[in-house]
Amino acid sequence: MSVLHLVTLLTDFGRQDIYVGVMKGVIANIEPQIQTIDLSHDIPVQNVIAARFCLLTAYEYFPPNTVHVAVVDPEVGSIRRAIAIEFDRGFLVGPDNGLFSGILNRVEAISAVELTNSQYWRTHYASNTFHGRDIFAPVGAHLASGIPLAELGETIAIESLVKSPVPQFQIEEKQITGCLQYIDRFGNLISNIPNELITTRHQTVQVVDRLIKLSKTYSDVPVGELVAIAGSHGWLEIAVNSGSAGHELNVDWQDCLTTLVRLT
Amino acid sequence: MSVLHLVTLLTDFGRQDIYVGVMKGVIANIEPQIQTIDLSHDIPVQNVIAARFCLLTAYEYFPPNTVHVAVVDPEVGSIRRAIAIEFDRGFLVGPDNGLFSGILNRVEAISAVELTNSQYWRTHYASNTFHGRDIFAPVGAHLASGIPLAELGETIAIESLVKSPVPQFQIEEKQITGCLQYIDRFGNLISNIPNELITTRHQTVQVVDRLIKLSKTYSDVPVGELVAIAGSHGWLEIAVNSGSAGHELNVDWQDCLTTLVRLT
Amino acid sequence: MSVLHLVTLLTDFGRQDIYVGVMKGVIANIEPQIQTIDLSHDIPVQNVIAARFCLLTAYEYFPPNTVHVAVVDPEVGSIRRAIAIEFDRGFLVGPDNGLFSGILNRVEAISAVELTNSQYWRTHYASNTFHGRDIFAPVGAHLASGIPLAELGETIAIESLVKSPVPQFQIEEKQITGCLQYIDRFGNLISNIPNELITTRHQTVQVVDRLIKLSKTYSDVPVGELVAIAGSHGWLEIAVNSGSAGHELNVDWQDCLTTLVRLT
Repeated sequence: MSVLHLVTLLTDFGRQDIYVGVMKGVIANIEPQIQTIDLSHDIPVQNVIAARFCLLTAYEYFPPNTVHVAVVDPEVGSIRRAIAIEFDRGFLVGPDNGLFSGILNRVEAISAVELTNSQYWRTHYASNTFHGRDIFAPVGAHLASGIPLAELGETIAIESLVKSPVPQFQIEEKQITGCLQYIDRFGNLISNIPNELITTRHQTVQVVDRLIKLSKTYSDVPVGELVAIAGSHGWLEIAVNSGSAGHELNVDWQDCLTTLVRLT
Repeated sequence: MSVLHLVTLLTDFGRQDIYVGVMKGVIANIEPQIQTIDLSHDIPVQNVIAARFCLLTAYEYFPPNTVHVAVVDPEVGSIRRAIAIEFDRGFLVGPDNGLFSGILNRVEAISAVELTNSQYWRTHYASNTFHGRDIFAPVGAHLASGIPLAELGETIAIESLVKSPVPQFQIEEKQITGCLQYIDRFGNLISNIPNELITTRHQTVQVVDRLIKLSKTYSDVPVGELVAIAGSHGWLEIAVNSGSAGHELNVDWQDCLTTLVRLT
Repeated sequence: MSVLHLVTLLTDFGRQDIYVGVMKGVIANIEPQIQTIDLSHDIPVQNVIAARFCLLTAYEYFPPNTVHVAVVDPEVGSIRRAIAIEFDRGFLVGPDNGLFSGILNRVEAISAVELTNSQYWRTHYASNTFHGRDIFAPVGAHLASGIPLAELGETIAIESLVKSPVPQFQIEEKQITGCLQYIDRFGNLISNIPNELITTRHQTVQVVDRLIKLSKTYSDVPVGELVAIAGSHGWLEIAVNSGSAGHELNVDWQDCLTTLVRLT
């Protein structure tokens, strides 16, 4: 028997309903020994930007060959493609809507398929509304059990995958300009400027109309004050010591990509 | 050693407290190799109707012999019976309050016992308030480990089990009349009219005072508009494209069974 | 191969972000066969009192040698110590801020270390903000895999551990006076007066300015009324039948330790 791999699940299904439990039942029905780990099921509804960020910040902590099944899928039932991708750390399974573009900007894909082979679906007929149960969970379980990617459907060109919805940061002479890409549950605002670009000559961060001091930890400023730090996710992050930067700056999910962050 | 079976957990305990973690500790203490899957722990508090629906829509996706432990138990500590049921897909464990009536309307029970044998409880004395920890989780773990149902207590007549709290739909000449039975976290309203009864001659659904067009997918109507579809759970469902039908129709849990749904 | 032990996780990270999933990825990366159980990830943010209570009420239900990793850590990145403790039921891993003082008031510690050996961290460099990922999860996984406690760092005196933040109850001639220590999601108020001290001569409980009758179960009083019972956690508890005592008495987390409970 081949070694079983881990399956992670990331959705916007929440936890009140049995959507997530049913996906795990479908996986256990294919191979009861597969271990599943929840990345999150509380992604803001249909927020592909947030889900993309979560995958990007999580994948590198998992063992080789982990299968990441992600279902944030506003266009389920339409003509968007269902895909699976092999990359050097494992596999990605979900809709082709840019969810995986964060990872694929960083690590090259080895190959990709459209999930056209209904033999590896739950049944040969998939519902119009719940591809997580009918296509993505069973395909993830089969990948974790050792079925080769090429079995799952027709190979597609990697260049044909939907591109990232998050713009690139810009390096200018005196500043780096990026945008917000994520708000965590503490209200910390995470930008798309990587920690590696922060140097000792940088001193302040401008967000909305506020100038914020660059510091080492949250507690370098008094309780209740804004602070910018090299965050634990790997990007420049704006926080409030023991508070919420999202609340303090009046920034919500709909402001994310359009809110500029200037590091000077 | 006999093969270990899966245990699912469904409760209204929420996730802030350690109630659910403790139930898993009790299971692991009996047999550490048992795998548990959470169906939901965010059932609206003491809402047997919602829990019944979740079990009914989830059970068929799990492997044979799965043990479903469900604890939505408004009458804990009173004289309601604690029961376990064997049916052709596995086992059901919980209070005798109609929780399992959805499944048992569809699949016949093989046998049922009252959980009177305290040898299979956590201790011989059960608390008045937490039978999930003291009776249902340990009994579920023992069933998953291969203890026969008949060991767990006195056999009871299947006809004596508490009947379903959800009324049956009515088929009349020109319409089918049912009611709402569940509201999911997206605000989709799920009726008790099975998808199989929807035919091409049906065109509209009446709920509250609204006439809603029967369509194929959420996105067959403009964003923000009501739509009725054959839902992925298996019943006629009322939704709003990218919105909440519960909010739009001002329907909440307490309206569920009394809100009629007419398919014409 | 040595037997693998269970790892439980308790944090205030919530479930929207991937913090918890990443800790599980780090554990699976060290040893994929370790089973993890979530105690709670919805501890009120930075509430060491609530986390201490949850650990205290959960630990005894788990198998011997379970490793409890707890990360409610307001002082992360400051000079507070990162510690691991061996006690007669297993291991405790987390910050030295009183989190484990509830358990250690009840069960004696066998030995304790400061987590100074970075060989057992995720990498030799730990972030300033996420010791759950970088130190506590990997140390927990190594303990569960059989690494001896003494390998993880320098031994520290058990008397040097941070003391409990919760005061002791007082036994006087005609009454026992304690305080609130926890509010569960139903709004039940849990005191620090143990059930064992409640005798038949006790009749009422005074909280805030209310005199509440001591009863056997929630349903001994009419729906909506206050009741005091010997709670399932092991302490005297104030509840409202089918309601919230926290709401009824206008008591919130910040009132916990300062709200007195008098049993007479």
